[in-house]
Amino acid sequence: MPDSLINDFRQAFNACQHRTARNLDAGLKQRFQQLADSLDDDETSDLYGSGALIEALETEVAELLGKEAAVFLPSGTMAQPIALKIWSEAARTPYVAMHSTSHVLLHEHNGYQALYGLHGVTIGQNHQVPTLEDLQQAALNPLAAVLLELPMREIGGQLPPWDDLVAQTQWLKAQGIRVHMDGARLWQCPAAYDKSLADIAALFDSVYVSFYKDLGGLAGACLVGDQTFIDKARIWIRRAGGNLYSLAPYVVAAREGLKTHLPQMPKRREQAIWLAGQLNALPGISTWPRVPQTNMFRLRLRGDANSVLPAMIKWMQATGIGILTPPYEVGEDYMMTELTIGDGFNTLPEEDWLRHIASFGDLLRSVISD
Amino acid sequence: MPDSLINDFRQAFNACQHRTARNLDAGLKQRFQQLADSLDDDETSDLYGSGALIEALETEVAELLGKEAAVFLPSGTMAQPIALKIWSEAARTPYVAMHSTSHVLLHEHNGYQALYGLHGVTIGQNHQVPTLEDLQQAALNPLAAVLLELPMREIGGQLPPWDDLVAQTQWLKAQGIRVHMDGARLWQCPAAYDKSLADIAALFDSVYVSFYKDLGGLAGACLVGDQTFIDKARIWIRRAGGNLYSLAPYVVAAREGLKTHLPQMPKRREQAIWLAGQLNALPGISTWPRVPQTNMFRLRLRGDANSVLPAMIKWMQATGIGILTPPYEVGEDYMMTELTIGDGFNTLPEEDWLRHIASFGDLLRSVISD
Repeated sequence: MPDSLINDFRQAFNACQHRTARNLDAGLKQRFQQLADSLDDDETSDLYGSGALIEALETEVAELLGKEAAVFLPSGTMAQPIALKIWSEAARTPYVAMHSTSHVLLHEHNGYQALYGLHGVTIGQNHQVPTLEDLQQAALNPLAAVLLELPMREIGGQLPPWDDLVAQTQWLKAQGIRVHMDGARLWQCPAAYDKSLADIAALFDSVYVSFYKDLGGLAGACLVGDQTFIDKARIWIRRAGGNLYSLAPYVVAAREGLKTHLPQMPKRREQAIWLAGQLNALPGISTWPRVPQTNMFRLRLRGDANSVLPAMIKWMQATGIGILTPPYEVGEDYMMTELTIGDGFNTLPEEDWLRHIASFGDLLRSVISD
Repeated sequence: MPDSLINDFRQAFNACQHRTARNLDAGLKQRFQQLADSLDDDETSDLYGSGALIEALETEVAELLGKEAAVFLPSGTMAQPIALKIWSEAARTPYVAMHSTSHVLLHEHNGYQALYGLHGVTIGQNHQVPTLEDLQQAALNPLAAVLLELPMREIGGQLPPWDDLVAQTQWLKAQGIRVHMDGARLWQCPAAYDKSLADIAALFDSVYVSFYKDLGGLAGACLVGDQTFIDKARIWIRRAGGNLYSLAPYVVAAREGLKTHLPQMPKRREQAIWLAGQLNALPGISTWPRVPQTNMFRLRLRGDANSVLPAMIKWMQATGIGILTPPYEVGEDYMMTELTIGDGFNTLPEEDWLRHIASFGDLLRSVISD
């Protein structure tokens, strides 16, 4: 894979004035300025996790999700093994199950094993939403908990059908197996399910949510659950080194994100569906899923990266328009990329996007063989 | 211990216009404003630990300490067990030794055991700087590493004599035992030892330094060592959940701290020595150590907290002057407190401090029985 080509692509994409995907990036100086502007004169930092600022955010998130309590912490990578560890200790078994594309398995250097001493059980088929049968198969192990991701990022933001999700979580509860939600992008789900955040969270014993993806924060996450679960989580967070002197920058950015980004989530889902429809009409492109279920989708572009990417870079530099994000995977005759609609999409009206997408289609036609 | 009384004391102290101890606190809104002001327009956030902003700081810290490499991470609680774990894996033994007042033992819910699977060996006497004999005793266990804190916060910022420190670290190295420094307040040591940061760090295989204590940052730490150690640390930091989408607020605050606070460290040590001398002349006060070795000391005040603290609160509210910080320990007839000189001390000239200290002495005389 031509790494320098991908880097050039990334730079060209980031330099574009208008981009289909992602949130706007104001630049670091303006970002800090915005955080300062959002604060009242008399607001003070949290101190090792306590204080009005952080406690108000935790209460807001707990209430949004209809749970007893929440704790704010630096990252999802810290949050999720802690949730699984708490359920593991309660159930006195180290086995926890998750899909093969879970962040816990793919992107955390197996910290859940190396640090938390947990044993993983992989559920389902690699590129598919898990089924009840998949869970029943996994539960042949003495499971403490199952982690379900909503939506499933690595397979294009897919979700299980609502009735399936209800049946799965009910079956797990009946077995005494706890259900933890990887809700990094949970914010996208209410529109997809036509349910509230609390309706969805009610199916789970514990939930992790993130503030820097859909909601445009700087970093930071919450674990959400009942009071005892959160009390235990606070101890593990101290152990892991996540109880910081000040989390204020992340807390303030998260507060802003809930205010400004969360209300836009349903509209972004409609935009994702519209955009995927337009892109699927272009030569060599097919989105995954064909019709997005949430605010994101993945996309396969046929072609040889060594000729397609330079042409796309040139086009972006000439037009200032970013249609496809940098590829995360390049094969012999295809590229894979991921698009999540953010507030960047709103910088152009639909008719302008149509015009640019048509022009981008002309480009593809010229570089992709039939 | 009357908790509400301590809280009242803390509030009164924090509201004081002038305080002997601690750094000035600008308020959160101004703090974010200052961070924004310190940035150039074209500076961008780090992204999961990479980028010019964070890499420049890591290089600066590595060079200051005369080591090959550094990695910035959220907290010391995350940093230190990681250092010990790396040395433990290299030596194929779980035993690591530290003083009974180490942060790792006192304030981290034993994460080094519960998460990192390490076994602790306690060295030395509870309230004394460890000796070579103490280390030799500990090394009857198959030690991977010894953690030495410079200066030792919980015993008033004391340091071993330089020659002792050299002899201890040389002996440990000769045994193949790694030496890790808890350098949360290392910045105070060059003036005390009349050595450079690099001279001191050269005695150690790995060093942790902190940016939010002496240096007035928001949070954040560095681990410093050779390249292989840092490469391994980066993996453990990912496992622990410390590889954040953005650490920029902490990085920028740390950069400012190195610029503005670090040069003041030697002067603050002189101020600490001067202040302790003045306070020791007051009724019922004795500092620990009698003559501070670094920029900090602890202090024992004789008296019944239930009468002494309300009188001191009233005095602070009347004068706007904070002489003693809130007590961290209250006994039947004494209180313990800790003073670390920050830039707050410079808000008054010495003659004004003398006047206020004399007046504070009158207050003590009126509430403390002989």
